[in-house]
Amino acid sequence: MRITDITITPVAFRDPPLLNSAGVHEPWALRSIVEVHTDEGVSGLGESYGDIGHLDRLSRVAPALVGLDVHQLNVMHRRVAEVLGGKSGDDRHGLTGKLTVEGTVDRVFSPFEVATWDIRGKALGRPVSDLLGGAVRDAVPYSAYLFYKWAGHPGAEPDQWGEAVDPAGIVAQAERLIAEYGFGSIKLKGGVFPPDEEIAAIHALREAFPTLPLRLDPNAAWSVETSIRVAEALDGVVEYLEDPTEGIPGLSEVAAKAPMPLATNMYVVAFEHIAPSVAVDAVQVVLSDHHYWGGLSRSRNLASTCETFGIGLSMHSNSHLGISLAAMTHLAAATPNLSYACDTHYPWNREDDVVLPGALTFVDGAVPVPTTPGLGVELDRDALARLAENYRTCGIVQRDDTGYMQKFDPTYERLRPRW
Amino acid sequence: MRITDITITPVAFRDPPLLNSAGVHEPWALRSIVEVHTDEGVSGLGESYGDIGHLDRLSRVAPALVGLDVHQLNVMHRRVAEVLGGKSGDDRHGLTGKLTVEGTVDRVFSPFEVATWDIRGKALGRPVSDLLGGAVRDAVPYSAYLFYKWAGHPGAEPDQWGEAVDPAGIVAQAERLIAEYGFGSIKLKGGVFPPDEEIAAIHALREAFPTLPLRLDPNAAWSVETSIRVAEALDGVVEYLEDPTEGIPGLSEVAAKAPMPLATNMYVVAFEHIAPSVAVDAVQVVLSDHHYWGGLSRSRNLASTCETFGIGLSMHSNSHLGISLAAMTHLAAATPNLSYACDTHYPWNREDDVVLPGALTFVDGAVPVPTTPGLGVELDRDALARLAENYRTCGIVQRDDTGYMQKFDPTYERLRPRW
Repeated sequence: MRITDITITPVAFRDPPLLNSAGVHEPWALRSIVEVHTDEGVSGLGESYGDIGHLDRLSRVAPALVGLDVHQLNVMHRRVAEVLGGKSGDDRHGLTGKLTVEGTVDRVFSPFEVATWDIRGKALGRPVSDLLGGAVRDAVPYSAYLFYKWAGHPGAEPDQWGEAVDPAGIVAQAERLIAEYGFGSIKLKGGVFPPDEEIAAIHALREAFPTLPLRLDPNAAWSVETSIRVAEALDGVVEYLEDPTEGIPGLSEVAAKAPMPLATNMYVVAFEHIAPSVAVDAVQVVLSDHHYWGGLSRSRNLASTCETFGIGLSMHSNSHLGISLAAMTHLAAATPNLSYACDTHYPWNREDDVVLPGALTFVDGAVPVPTTPGLGVELDRDALARLAENYRTCGIVQRDDTGYMQKFDPTYERLRPRW
Repeated sequence: MRITDITITPVAFRDPPLLNSAGVHEPWALRSIVEVHTDEGVSGLGESYGDIGHLDRLSRVAPALVGLDVHQLNVMHRRVAEVLGGKSGDDRHGLTGKLTVEGTVDRVFSPFEVATWDIRGKALGRPVSDLLGGAVRDAVPYSAYLFYKWAGHPGAEPDQWGEAVDPAGIVAQAERLIAEYGFGSIKLKGGVFPPDEEIAAIHALREAFPTLPLRLDPNAAWSVETSIRVAEALDGVVEYLEDPTEGIPGLSEVAAKAPMPLATNMYVVAFEHIAPSVAVDAVQVVLSDHHYWGGLSRSRNLASTCETFGIGLSMHSNSHLGISLAAMTHLAAATPNLSYACDTHYPWNREDDVVLPGALTFVDGAVPVPTTPGLGVELDRDALARLAENYRTCGIVQRDDTGYMQKFDPTYERLRPRW
């Protein structure tokens, strides 16, 4: 079953003004929708980043994959590396770490690889989770992903979510997300306000939700000393602390004193980072993400390596649509040692999805694993056209949380550490 | 596609008196042939050890797998663990390390897992290598596996291979194997004669085959000091030294001074051994073996972990038949970082194979990867019946190289180290 054609459609969808340590989400989030077509009439879907540099790399790689059989993942990965020619990409937000040559290959490979799983599943009449070794859970738990946020984008009407800039706003946001989705775990994106305010927000969440696992992720906004102070203040309150400080050496210093595990999706983001992290026990939980770990097969390799080294496994998300959610759900379902609820931005962006409704739902905070062939999602062509038009007109070609923040506060700087 | 029935047939086949650090091969080698049947009429093959304890474990596990879908590898692995109930197996030869609870699960899981790949490949009409990510090589190179040996089993006529107890005998054996198979690498099983004699054999091989990669494997017969002395004597002559001494701490001491990489198939033989080995850089090459690393999917995980930690990957073999050779070949073909020629005992045992001839050949020392569906081999029912009858009449139920040696030399002891 050979690849005959690949379509890459950049899309943009509405995104609320969610705050993080690099700035604030712009009004439009970007993604690329990848469709891989074969000579047997079966097509598959993938989804990835939509930044212009990444789009350029996807577009340059796609022709080199035409003619390959959809089983030839090893050859496909090598082809991607050849086309990219040892050059690494970059991004402006830095929220998933510094891009390396190897990491760039895996990012570009990922949506094509996911599409081949979709194709193989459809051809075989089996869900992708079956092809990954079989689901060990019928539904994949996700966490309520809380954000400090403004009431609305400056100059626009307040959005439906309203403002959350203090513990009360965060608790209200959690209550709403949990009422609507049934989430059984809570993650707060921090690194926005001084650490004591975020500690207070976590304590307020603990009081409001006495039994739910909590996590805090300041995206490396803190120094080693601040991180240790926060870790001590949250002893027994959070299940893990995510990327408190910058770099493997810094995380290692914090980990040696923190009473809880440290997690990362910023400093162990490619296979080459694992050995240096293990050597100094920098993190005890890795947040996997098939978008940058090279698709589903390589994410499964990551999971095995984590299990072998006694490293916990959770799952990271950027703003994404339903193709990604489906892929994340199949992968998580077939990964026995994925023992934490996965992150997802989906509740913030789902109104603009490109897949037909109905395939993906949340039941008690978990997404039931699709049991239809492939990923189990189908493109909504009208929605895709609408989101592609958004992309053409929105004026954004590269995610830049810092630049957007600076529009409203010219003195704003992205600092690591900030506190 | 659900499993309806599993057949396990113990077989015995003729084995020459090959010498190693634990004694000498008995006249019959034992294996188990596993056939997994499904409700869609497709069956698959697996092959594993034939020792009575292992057979008992296979037989106890098989009924627990009936009813599972052939995609449910994760659930299947868990079922195996449940049935075994946390008990580890044992063996008498100790040539693949000490059996642990986890390692026992992986050994028992392996032949069933391999059979499911065969089934899925047949059902899809694709070779197993395609299901593993696709072959990156059309043929898998194997090494000429040399053994010190007696002329024949005591009391029997000399076998076709004749005696090899000195450098000249080893070189003659290599010449014959290379003439017949075209091997491009040479491995000598050592640990049989005092180290200086084996060093002389390696130097004789180097003289006879100036360009072929050489390896020496004494199966932990040497002390740390002796290992370092041999390593220095073979500097620039062998591509790696395999299991020179016992245990991860010992290997680490040797590795710190040896000029060549150390390899193991005795002390990193289960996932739980990897982290302790990495922590002290005990070995630089792992000899994978799907028979004890839990089948093809988990061997692929091992391969990825080795790549991630900069550990070389080669492949180990015990005495085996064509089903194993097919599985090894598909796995090796789809493992990009398997950068050494694989070991195989096949030339010593191939006359008694249970698969129909023609599917597996050696061309220039490499086995072309079967391109027919599944593993690409079919059972020869007459041969299977003959080998099963051998098993019933041969009087051996457990491999015991040491006990067999003691029949002829009652003073013989298995010593680690011997020198």
